Amino acid sequence: MPRTYIDTLRDHEDGAKVVVYGWMQEARIMKNISFLMIRDNTGTIQATFKNDEATLDIIKRINRESIVRVDGSVNKKSISKAGIEISGTSISIVNEAEAPLPLPVVDPVQADLETRLNSRFMDLRKRNISAIFRIESALLWGIRQYLHSQKFIEVHTPKIVAAATEGGSDLFPVRYFEKDAYLNQSPQLYKEVLMSAGFDRVFEVGPAFRAEEHNTTRHLNEFTSIDIEMSFADHNDAMAMLENAIRSGIENAVRENAEDFESLGISISVPETPFPRITYEQCIDLLQKDGIDFTFGDDFSPDQLRTIGSRFSGFYFITEWPSSVRPFYTMPKSEDPRLTNSFDLQYREIEVTSGAQRVHDPKMLIQRFNEKKLDVKSFQFYVDAFKYGMPPHAGWGLGLERLTMILLGLNNIRETTLFPRDRTRIVP
Amino acid sequence: MPRTYIDTLRDHEDGAKVVVYGWMQEARIMKNISFLMIRDNTGTIQATFKNDEATLDIIKRINRESIVRVDGSVNKKSISKAGIEISGTSISIVNEAEAPLPLPVVDPVQADLETRLNSRFMDLRKRNISAIFRIESALLWGIRQYLHSQKFIEVHTPKIVAAATEGGSDLFPVRYFEKDAYLNQSPQLYKEVLMSAGFDRVFEVGPAFRAEEHNTTRHLNEFTSIDIEMSFADHNDAMAMLENAIRSGIENAVRENAEDFESLGISISVPETPFPRITYEQCIDLLQKDGIDFTFGDDFSPDQLRTIGSRFSGFYFITEWPSSVRPFYTMPKSEDPRLTNSFDLQYREIEVTSGAQRVHDPKMLIQRFNEKKLDVKSFQFYVDAFKYGMPPHAGWGLGLERLTMILLGLNNIRETTLFPRDRTRIVP
Repeated sequence: MPRTYIDTLRDHEDGAKVVVYGWMQEARIMKNISFLMIRDNTGTIQATFKNDEATLDIIKRINRESIVRVDGSVNKKSISKAGIEISGTSISIVNEAEAPLPLPVVDPVQADLETRLNSRFMDLRKRNISAIFRIESALLWGIRQYLHSQKFIEVHTPKIVAAATEGGSDLFPVRYFEKDAYLNQSPQLYKEVLMSAGFDRVFEVGPAFRAEEHNTTRHLNEFTSIDIEMSFADHNDAMAMLENAIRSGIENAVRENAEDFESLGISISVPETPFPRITYEQCIDLLQKDGIDFTFGDDFSPDQLRTIGSRFSGFYFITEWPSSVRPFYTMPKSEDPRLTNSFDLQYREIEVTSGAQRVHDPKMLIQRFNEKKLDVKSFQFYVDAFKYGMPPHAGWGLGLERLTMILLGLNNIRETTLFPRDRTRIVP
Repeated sequence: MPRTYIDTLRDHEDGAKVVVYGWMQEARIMKNISFLMIRDNTGTIQATFKNDEATLDIIKRINRESIVRVDGSVNKKSISKAGIEISGTSISIVNEAEAPLPLPVVDPVQADLETRLNSRFMDLRKRNISAIFRIESALLWGIRQYLHSQKFIEVHTPKIVAAATEGGSDLFPVRYFEKDAYLNQSPQLYKEVLMSAGFDRVFEVGPAFRAEEHNTTRHLNEFTSIDIEMSFADHNDAMAMLENAIRSGIENAVRENAEDFESLGISISVPETPFPRITYEQCIDLLQKDGIDFTFGDDFSPDQLRTIGSRFSGFYFITEWPSSVRPFYTMPKSEDPRLTNSFDLQYREIEVTSGAQRVHDPKMLIQRFNEKKLDVKSFQFYVDAFKYGMPPHAGWGLGLERLTMILLGLNNIRETTLFPRDRTRIVP
């Protein structure tokens, strides 16, 4: 007899025979009957058993969180809160749980984050925790669907690399046989090379690695990066692609995950596009009107971003950042080369995405390398791709876990990462 | 005026004004007119220009593979082979290519693979090379669509890990701040932990790293692994999921990529499901009938797999492998514990996927660790997930590049990897 998922029990007739598999969440043994709360990934259901000797003998032996099989029939006349239960005819233990549990599944008092992450497999059994990852998966699915509809192809570029993307020092070294290599910080160089290769539009979803020493609530040392690059396009094209991709992701999550939002106790609405745009220089004006001193060429502090972000209700773009705070591959603005054709997508004070039109002229690229005091020789395969026909191009990189965090109003990126990697954690 | 992709020029009226961007592939300058072959990601088109002085001056300066913009009108009365061309009114150079090229794009003589990989951005400009990656992307999209329809959620597990998945020595060491860590060989342990966490069905598409010393045409040190794991399921459920996912991938590629198959000069058909199944012991019988000596418990040699594979026209499963050649997490067959509830998906002599029902009983797991002489302490986070309610589960891992290789009949996995990583190569 096939397994029935708990959320589909309602679709059965009253009295229909069913088999349910799941975790035995709680047992209440009364004088004549026992109530077992059974949980699977779709929900919980009460199973009621008459206390005949054999059944009672089994029920008494079942530790909480053991995997059980319940055979019974659907009872739609149940007086339980749910209005439906299973009248159990037999129960068996499929895989026994030890007692005590390292972390309770049903518990009004939430353990601290470190304890939860140490026993992540237990923590994730709570519906309001697993909901985060079902929503994250749905967001990504919606983003992918949009990119697919726009004729992007999905690519996979290497994570073991010989050169730093940003030329920085935030690199994890890897011993690659006899060679020294690194974990890639971003697929930036490779996706640009693929523009020279003629792919026109590519996206990649994969891990990115940053050996940043600081331990914050918004950064991880390994995260999931959604990256796109498109040819014969500029920063405006890339921004349009980004806001539409995010809207598609949210639309999909709202459509597919109503119950998960409910279990999180939040509701989100699909943002209207286009998102508002404000230039870097307009941001300075805003700050100065508020009496805040700011030097052109600096990056905004978190406090300053909070001030700017308070003008917007959700997503907004800050555009035309100065060259001084953008990486070497960013295209200068032709009318004012102190500025660039770049953007950050912000959500209140939090940066969600960074993107830009890129330099495509090989001479300008070399000049930018020199300005940033980077060694061209370490980037030879990248520079070569510019010398023999590189189209104008633009793109962005979006951190999936950070997007989920801000949309769900969570205050720590570890909440949206199954097994986070930070300054001190590599287990589990 | 918006850019027109070359493959959509046919949809325009004769005489319609268009702007085309692309690579200048070839120029033939005649007495009164010039013929330029322009290429974008969708195809090539001939643009014809009258040799007025200004135009001729530009055309003479255009090196092959430069990025150009062509303004003109659609000419459907063209006597060219294609029956359509652009009557050019103006041409400009968007980004100039240097000469000579490191690798020709139009060349009947194919360079050797090493040379091609060294200038991969040029190599990929050939339509029969880029076609491989458009097909690979379409295969993955079709596989994803199937898994999504079966309620799998997509997850991302860490690639920087403290413990070896298989306990083997084929690990790339990573320096993670003060700690020693490794690149993950497979998401196996994490996806199993997610079954204990209650996710029911998960899949992951991400890089996997194997520090194997040998340099073969079928192995890479970094590859894209498609992994699934499903709860309350056995090896038969996992095999059904696999054959349907692969069929969905091929269906999608055949539907979306007709021109790419044409440029590769091959046509593939959607395989019928279910795929044939043959047990390990039946394979031994087959070999012995052919007079080949074989000891129970060994793995098959490539020659032996060729003999077995010759009985099948495409995909087939070899099931019930002996415990001796399967990893510790493989479920023994209850009727005969020398064997396991495992399978390999084969395509002729090549292994495409490995999968199995997994051990879910924590006592049996510890016993299997001991049999394989693995240190349980290195796997504590994994073992813990089995002690507090682990459902029966099954899954598989499928190498995307290898699947593409066998479907397209290519003889080297580097052909289906944009930037391969092997024993000696980490650039580009």
